[in-house]
Amino acid sequence: MLVNAYGAYAGDRPLESLQISRREPGVHDVQIDIAYCGVCHSDLHQVRSEWAGTQFPCVPGHEIVGRVSAIGAQVKNFTIGDLVGVGCMVDSCQRCADCEAGFENYCDGMVGTYNSPTKDEPGWTLGGYSQRIVVHERFALRIRHHASQLAAVAPLLCAGITTYSPLRHWGAGPGKKVGVVGIGGLGHMGIKLAHAMGAHVVAFTTSDSKREAALALGADEVVVSRSAEEMAVHAQSFDLILNTVAAPHDLDAFLVLLKRDGTMVLVGAPATPHPSPNVFNLIMRRRSIAGSMIGGIPETQEMLDFCAEHGIVADIEMIRADEINEAYERMLRGDVKYRFVIDTATLGA
Amino acid sequence: MLVNAYGAYAGDRPLESLQISRREPGVHDVQIDIAYCGVCHSDLHQVRSEWAGTQFPCVPGHEIVGRVSAIGAQVKNFTIGDLVGVGCMVDSCQRCADCEAGFENYCDGMVGTYNSPTKDEPGWTLGGYSQRIVVHERFALRIRHHASQLAAVAPLLCAGITTYSPLRHWGAGPGKKVGVVGIGGLGHMGIKLAHAMGAHVVAFTTSDSKREAALALGADEVVVSRSAEEMAVHAQSFDLILNTVAAPHDLDAFLVLLKRDGTMVLVGAPATPHPSPNVFNLIMRRRSIAGSMIGGIPETQEMLDFCAEHGIVADIEMIRADEINEAYERMLRGDVKYRFVIDTATLGA
Repeated sequence: MLVNAYGAYAGDRPLESLQISRREPGVHDVQIDIAYCGVCHSDLHQVRSEWAGTQFPCVPGHEIVGRVSAIGAQVKNFTIGDLVGVGCMVDSCQRCADCEAGFENYCDGMVGTYNSPTKDEPGWTLGGYSQRIVVHERFALRIRHHASQLAAVAPLLCAGITTYSPLRHWGAGPGKKVGVVGIGGLGHMGIKLAHAMGAHVVAFTTSDSKREAALALGADEVVVSRSAEEMAVHAQSFDLILNTVAAPHDLDAFLVLLKRDGTMVLVGAPATPHPSPNVFNLIMRRRSIAGSMIGGIPETQEMLDFCAEHGIVADIEMIRADEINEAYERMLRGDVKYRFVIDTATLGA
Repeated sequence: MLVNAYGAYAGDRPLESLQISRREPGVHDVQIDIAYCGVCHSDLHQVRSEWAGTQFPCVPGHEIVGRVSAIGAQVKNFTIGDLVGVGCMVDSCQRCADCEAGFENYCDGMVGTYNSPTKDEPGWTLGGYSQRIVVHERFALRIRHHASQLAAVAPLLCAGITTYSPLRHWGAGPGKKVGVVGIGGLGHMGIKLAHAMGAHVVAFTTSDSKREAALALGADEVVVSRSAEEMAVHAQSFDLILNTVAAPHDLDAFLVLLKRDGTMVLVGAPATPHPSPNVFNLIMRRRSIAGSMIGGIPETQEMLDFCAEHGIVADIEMIRADEINEAYERMLRGDVKYRFVIDTATLGA
């Protein structure tokens, strides 16, 4: 079947309206009529060929929400009309130790929601800037939020799980002091989630102008990271720092804020390396620098349920599909609070 | 009291014979007649002013073993004649949360065995290249090895605990695959200890010539890290890599060998930074880079007991005190298997 979508024919061309093919649902598949799709910085990197190996036409989008509109004969967990989401993955090997442990995100055979090899036409996956998608039911997530919140749920599928997973893995919760570096699409979710988990949350920003906004998101304190004095107050006090900033920056300024056995987890990878961190800052208090990539499917469901229970959604700005190129420019300037979401009704009939 | 020692009067002068003052034992102190002192690379860095803030005269040495020769009135755990050791610390605040948890090594008030501020003459601590030392009993360790092994026990007080602590903390043991990078003073202890803990041990060396030696130390496998083919065989397979190499090198070559949730722990700090590690290698499998510094006092005692039980000592080359300058040059060339130990009887009467 053909559906309307928005994508690009080359890395140096703007996104435009196009039509793509979706497979008929197989026995384990759910067909989802997409209602909204969030706009992630990764979308921009991929479609502009800033990452290697982009196949064109490229249709980005991996923060997908909508309703089930058809199911395969052996689908067990979903029925037509269910509110569902699809995140950064649409398949994996489903057999390896990682998959069996619910870490499909770390499976060597993980299939990304766009630009990953697939048997479907045209040979690589096409993402959520489109009217419809078909996925194995394992990669569909149940959404328990009220339908009226659906657009603001979309960013949970990437920005939400990318921050939830490391916060849970490194034990954010009552009695823990957790820092969140960067108050953007990822960071604003990190603040909300860490706060809901019961941690004492400190937001780091380079701009004093974001102070009130960070407090409103749930931060207990806000630190302007360019102020050496403000930073020094927090020396050796953090259990965990969630660093969402992908631009190269001085990691040492944050490492020294960790207490013994503290961890700074990076969820963004810079295009050029960070300045090399000072090993002494790791050795002196047995600190760690770690990385984390999205989250597994069971954990993504757990995150969605946690957010539904705690009334958490993303702060979004809705756009029409034909506003996506302008939205990318604004995203590059940090001019969005905090996530663009495409209303796929604007893709046309 | 005055005792004979070996030290330097300036960073650009060789070590030479000198006399230093030791305090009379206080009520909680033990006085130790030093039998042997190991030679650590840190000694060289400090005495040559390669690290900031060296006070002269400087007497290095923090791998100290000997016998108790006097005790203070309130000493509880030691008596005259006991075999004891002193490692990298001779004091700490003894009150903070770290000290109470047995992590004196991470206490802000930790007093190093040499070149740390003290009320004793001359105002900074003087190390184990000397006939005698006086320390609070908390910082004396009981040695349960046979007295004939005493010289080879000395390096356990730094090289031993520096590798034992991270191996234990990150769970080296049966069913775990543990890499040890670098086969020197620290690395040779890391191999012995990880093997004794029951891990599958892989030694990494840049030199094929060390293959047999590493196997003899207890490695199950040896990998020449300059061989991309040998390295590729071990991709994504390690739970833990203990990296003892302080010279700047490519950390990514080892990071990609870690499985999901694996950790590479650095115990050496380079004088100039390592090339900045690729954040993708952390993110893709939720890997960590950590640091670790020696170990706490209870853990050091545990390590010594573990080594006594498993018959573990360091491989050493005994030297006279007046051979120390030459030994430093050989240490810089890696020409020692694997630790020099000074026989303090050669310090003179």
